[in-house]
Amino acid sequence: MKIIIIGASGTLGQKVTAALKEKHEIITAGSKSGDLQVDITSTESILAFYKKAGGFDALVSVTGSGHFGPLSTMTPTDFKKGIDSKLMGQVNLVLIGQHYINPKGSFTLTSGILSSDPVLYGANLSTVNGAINSFVIAAAIGLENGVRINAVSPGVVEDSPEYFDAFPGHIPVAMARVVAGYERSVLGSGTGQVIEIF
Amino acid sequence: MKIIIIGASGTLGQKVTAALKEKHEIITAGSKSGDLQVDITSTESILAFYKKAGGFDALVSVTGSGHFGPLSTMTPTDFKKGIDSKLMGQVNLVLIGQHYINPKGSFTLTSGILSSDPVLYGANLSTVNGAINSFVIAAAIGLENGVRINAVSPGVVEDSPEYFDAFPGHIPVAMARVVAGYERSVLGSGTGQVIEIF
Ligand SMILES: NC(=O)c1ccc[n+]([C@@H]2O[C@H](COP(=O)([O-])OP(=O)(O)OC[C@H]3O[C@@H](n4cnc5c(N)ncnc54)[C@H](OP(=O)(O)O)[C@@H]3O)[C@@H](O)[C@H]2O)c1
Ligand SMILES: NC(=O)c1ccc[n+]([C@@H]2O[C@H](COP(=O)([O-])OP(=O)(O)OC[C@H]3O[C@@H](n4cnc5c(N)ncnc54)[C@H](OP(=O)(O)O)[C@@H]3O)[C@@H](O)[C@H]2O)c1
Repeated sequence: MKIIIIGASGTLGQKVTAALKEKHEIITAGSKSGDLQVDITSTESILAFYKKAGGFDALVSVTGSGHFGPLSTMTPTDFKKGIDSKLMGQVNLVLIGQHYINPKGSFTLTSGILSSDPVLYGANLSTVNGAINSFVIAAAIGLENGVRINAVSPGVVEDSPEYFDAFPGHIPVAMARVVAGYERSVLGSGTGQVIEIF
Repeated sequence: MKIIIIGASGTLGQKVTAALKEKHEIITAGSKSGDLQVDITSTESILAFYKKAGGFDALVSVTGSGHFGPLSTMTPTDFKKGIDSKLMGQVNLVLIGQHYINPKGSFTLTSGILSSDPVLYGANLSTVNGAINSFVIAAAIGLENGVRINAVSPGVVEDSPEYFDAFPGHIPVAMARVVAGYERSVLGSGTGQVIEIF
């Protein structure tokens, strides 16, 4: 299988890439790192990326950022950060990528636990994660040629101790379980699933 | 109670307004209709609106649109319609309005059944509705001075027969139940609730 991994150099992406590359052809990508470069916040960059990457069987997006901070000082411009990056970046990978993916291929996006289990300062990422979860549920019934789509929704992961203080009482998730979630989406047969790794 | 209703002239808004105005001071608003005008897709317009409206106890948003059409031809620009209107329009009513609302006031936003129960062509609105639901869950723990926030998530309503063909097998919801959802949010004490009227 030819698998594109956007965000392959990241905390989650490194482990997901290591697991999938054992048996599959991998193209890694990031805005600066990877085999190919793509900026998910730019539709022109996404289009150019797909033209360069050629046909593929799976797209795994393990990327996207948002604003983290108090609601009382959060501005529309702050909020746009997550909308343009983690939300529209991932949605546009699908809207554009549906025209380049092989039949029976799959898209795997990343959301996160904040959609249903909020933390103070996390309103932007909660919103974006809820949006991604509902997007995959809906896109699954609109994609053609047997193409599948799922989201992996991890809790805060054991490899990101810098986030622990912002997630009081959250039990960090083992990376092996997170990796298994991506494998289930890419190598399994489900579609329209939100794969919760809490 | 002084209640602002954005979208008061709409299918849902008319009935919500009729119910709330029996016992409360109402300011109606729309982009063209109402006591005051506001374009929720413009942060400048929202800011000017709040300055004109003065302090208030509840803001009810029964507005916001999105793109409806096949995923296979949906473009990033199509998708932006719902992001800029129903999603960021309502989020920005809260981000800006939190600085104008009275202590113990409330925000009530509108999402919809498509967040969890998709229909073909509805990917943009599903995404936006999921985003709004997660936004209220998260914003509820970030709002200060006892300010509350909820979303009402209606199914397709009995007063919108033009949508029935696009919602096969959905049982249209009685408007009295929808109105009750908004009353529960505004006049009740809950916060961070997604009030499902399915
Ligand atoms: N870490 C956690 O505990 C956790 C928990 C739940 C969910 N998540 C979610 O999982 C995803 C990955 O998180 P992470 O902690 O692994 O992030 P990370 O370590 O910061 O890695 C981000 C990755 O995305 C790439 N990237 C950044 N900006 C990009 C852009 N504009 N276009 C394309 N690629 C870009 C980076 O490569 P370049 O530097 O080359 O751009 C890098 O490979 C995020 O959506 C995050 O919200 C993380
Ligand atoms: N109808 C349904 O079956 C149904 C079901 C579930 C959820 N919903 C949701 O409920 C909400 C209202 O739906 P509806 O069917 O009642 O809509 P509608 O009949 O089209 O009414 C829309 C209202 O919003 C106002 N409006 C439009 N654009 C605006 C803007 N840019 N800024 C400020 N106000 C604006 C309109 O007034 P002006 O003309 O003066 O701008 C009007 O009062 C929407 O979010 C919809 O997705 C509807």
